[in-house]
Amino acid sequence: MPVDLADAFTRVPAPWTPLVVGTLNGQHVKIAVLDGSFVWHQHPDADELFHVLSGRLTLRFRDRPDQVLGPGQLTIVPRGVEHCPVAEDGPVQVVLFEPIGTRNTGDVGGARTVVPAHLPE
Amino acid sequence: MPVDLADAFTRVPAPWTPLVVGTLNGQHVKIAVLDGSFVWHQHPDADELFHVLSGRLTLRFRDRPDQVLGPGQLTIVPRGVEHCPVAEDGPVQVVLFEPIGTRNTGDVGGARTVVPAHLPE
Repeated sequence: MPVDLADAFTRVPAPWTPLVVGTLNGQHVKIAVLDGSFVWHQHPDADELFHVLSGRLTLRFRDRPDQVLGPGQLTIVPRGVEHCPVAEDGPVQVVLFEPIGTRNTGDVGGARTVVPAHLPE
Repeated sequence: MPVDLADAFTRVPAPWTPLVVGTLNGQHVKIAVLDGSFVWHQHPDADELFHVLSGRLTLRFRDRPDQVLGPGQLTIVPRGVEHCPVAEDGPVQVVLFEPIGTRNTGDVGGARTVVPAHLPE
């Protein structure tokens, strides 16, 4: 069955808590609401796509210029690139693509690590 | 740099001609405009995601009920499942996610096979 993203977002439990809405080719399609600042981290073995549906997301980087994404914009953070997502203008809705098992806090782990829930079939 | 999808769609050369807008984890993120009927086909080794941004897309199947997707809806066609995308109410804008090298016409090939262009960096 198709996934309706607007409906799926009503099932997101909290900001920074991704919800898996699809699985293909060893990858997860997740949605998330981002609000405020996250933690600096990187994913050693995972490229990560951020596709902003609503709101304004800043991706901070150590080694390159920051990126600011609005609705209908996407970017890919390559594996090993340290980044910090920041939503300082209110909640941001994003679609994420990344390998199954990618940890939201990457190499740093810690208190903000969550195991994502899955959208019910 | 972020990809602006509205801008990227202005670079799509023709309907049924995907444009690669990103690469990650061995997968391509593509955009395409679908208009009219495509050909029945399947991808033996590739699950394929369709995320509709605008318009109304029907996915016909041999072995399961058809699916109709509107804006903000997505579905995954598993590998080996024969399908035929149909946009019978005018052009449909989609984001596709599938392994690098996935042929648009899958196992059948033929006249409508295209090698996708890439968005300039």
